[in-house]
Amino acid sequence: MKPAQIRKKIAETPAKSAASGAGSALDKWRPMFAAEMERVDKLIESLSESDAGLIPKLTMHLVGSGGKRLRPVLTILAAKLCKYEGERHIRLAAAIEFIHTATLLHDDVVDESELRRGKQTANHVWGNAASVLVGDFLLSRAFQLMAQDGSLKVLQILSDTSAIISEGEVLQLMSMGDLAREKETYIRIISAKTAQLFAAGCEVGAVIADAGDAKENAMLEFGKNLGIAFQIVDDALDYSAKQEQLGKAVGDDFREGKVTLPVLNAYAKADKQGKTFWERTISAHKQEEGDLAEAIRLIGATNALDATMAEAKAYADKAAKALEVFDDSDAKQALLDLLEFSVNRPY
Amino acid sequence: MKPAQIRKKIAETPAKSAASGAGSALDKWRPMFAAEMERVDKLIESLSESDAGLIPKLTMHLVGSGGKRLRPVLTILAAKLCKYEGERHIRLAAAIEFIHTATLLHDDVVDESELRRGKQTANHVWGNAASVLVGDFLLSRAFQLMAQDGSLKVLQILSDTSAIISEGEVLQLMSMGDLAREKETYIRIISAKTAQLFAAGCEVGAVIADAGDAKENAMLEFGKNLGIAFQIVDDALDYSAKQEQLGKAVGDDFREGKVTLPVLNAYAKADKQGKTFWERTISAHKQEEGDLAEAIRLIGATNALDATMAEAKAYADKAAKALEVFDDSDAKQALLDLLEFSVNRPY
Repeated sequence: MKPAQIRKKIAETPAKSAASGAGSALDKWRPMFAAEMERVDKLIESLSESDAGLIPKLTMHLVGSGGKRLRPVLTILAAKLCKYEGERHIRLAAAIEFIHTATLLHDDVVDESELRRGKQTANHVWGNAASVLVGDFLLSRAFQLMAQDGSLKVLQILSDTSAIISEGEVLQLMSMGDLAREKETYIRIISAKTAQLFAAGCEVGAVIADAGDAKENAMLEFGKNLGIAFQIVDDALDYSAKQEQLGKAVGDDFREGKVTLPVLNAYAKADKQGKTFWERTISAHKQEEGDLAEAIRLIGATNALDATMAEAKAYADKAAKALEVFDDSDAKQALLDLLEFSVNRPY
Repeated sequence: MKPAQIRKKIAETPAKSAASGAGSALDKWRPMFAAEMERVDKLIESLSESDAGLIPKLTMHLVGSGGKRLRPVLTILAAKLCKYEGERHIRLAAAIEFIHTATLLHDDVVDESELRRGKQTANHVWGNAASVLVGDFLLSRAFQLMAQDGSLKVLQILSDTSAIISEGEVLQLMSMGDLAREKETYIRIISAKTAQLFAAGCEVGAVIADAGDAKENAMLEFGKNLGIAFQIVDDALDYSAKQEQLGKAVGDDFREGKVTLPVLNAYAKADKQGKTFWERTISAHKQEEGDLAEAIRLIGATNALDATMAEAKAYADKAAKALEVFDDSDAKQALLDLLEFSVNRPY
């Protein structure tokens, strides 16, 4: 298919209903942040305008691709929980979504992905060069927003976050296919590449509200543990037979040879034949037709998904506990529901 | 060759003598900034340490690769010219070199380059994924350094710069092979991708010295025009027969199909046969053996290099003029010599 045709196809694809929110379990809370998310969306769209037309194209391809937009929603809810009443959370939520989008663009180049959530990746449509450069542009935009915001504390949190994310991605790259990897290394990697931005988004919401060290730290802990739980569940869903039945894309991590928690759990409990399978498909990265089905079968046979979900729930419990310093409020309940939604997606 | 062997080979390659300075014409001024550049180098090395071992490897591969290190030298000299006496220029010079290094890592992925200055590119040795992610890490480090520095004005200058650089790179990508491109578009692209960081590096030196709007603006103008002149000369050298005789790498831009000023000048004056040659090799990007030699011959035959160098000199004159607001000093003379060196490299 030619680029022009693909662009036309994308333009004609209706945005999914989840495009401007954070998933169905949050639907009842949506009125609480819908107006603010609309302002975040408008800011993102206006800041990705450029006569270098690839910039808005790639940005809106990703931002408008039906992602859950969890990160900016988290910043807005964290600010609300800390009784923030200003305007800064809009700009910072956009900065956080820009960092996230830049990461996705670069990830797809790194992973050589062709699909993300069943949709063609930007690098597959417009090429690696465009994805690399537009990612750089969006990361720069995030720092321009921080300069406008004017808080050095926020700048420090988010520049540290950005460095930690890329360091985690390099670590992941270096331990690709390593089935002997310790579970701690897996947790360290997902803490860096996923949970760090959740944590920073929550912390920033508390910081702009001047909530004080205890509450800023509580929000950071909430975000970090939510992020770890969220990524573990995401990694579990990639091997979920139920997801496959629901028509969702599964097997991306498997095809890329990523060593995720379900694989580590399955490998630990595998018999000799099972171990050989994982070593061939993941360590040696030699895959044949039918291997994904066999991987899902082996993960089921060793109860690896249940074990993985139990670990996710343990992190979710830590996240919920972190919120105990806050009085009950709608914002607190919304965050707890979002946490619940993150670990109880069907798998 | 295996990665381990390549790493060994790189480790054994002695750094070129130009590695820690800004070129031979500046040798007499080197004592003025050598101690500060050594501190910049040490800071860069310590900030690229990570147990994600690819990070220091790729960083030092580039930073230690015999580049001229013009940008941090400019910041140091600009600070001196403005009589700055603190410590902040060290950190900010390192931040600027990090931005530059991140750009080089990503550029090589974008251009699919195998060689930079006759040395294997990082992406060729360690792969695109490593270059993308380590580039992201270094860009983040630059913003961490700005957070430490604590000046929102500096953050604004450098975050704007970073966005403009990547926007310029996207524009360059979009107009690849376009021989009908206006000269203005070429100047706009090199202003963004090269001159912007020169300008920012100079401006920042004046800003930390609290030199006032007139001098800050003069430093910005000096850096911008120096940067444009420098890039035009760089683009000319890529087609220089003399450079080839000196054993320097030439033809990188030609092989990548980049429309640079010598090509635009040669195309404008080409006869029908010449036009056909440029359209095949650059626009259609279909090249055969012997094409580079023919390109160099055609550029010589149309006096395109002389025309290109004359344009570079016009920008250099503007740069020199910008320094007129400053009293004479060693720092001013060093900057003028650096300007002279930038446009009078042998071609």
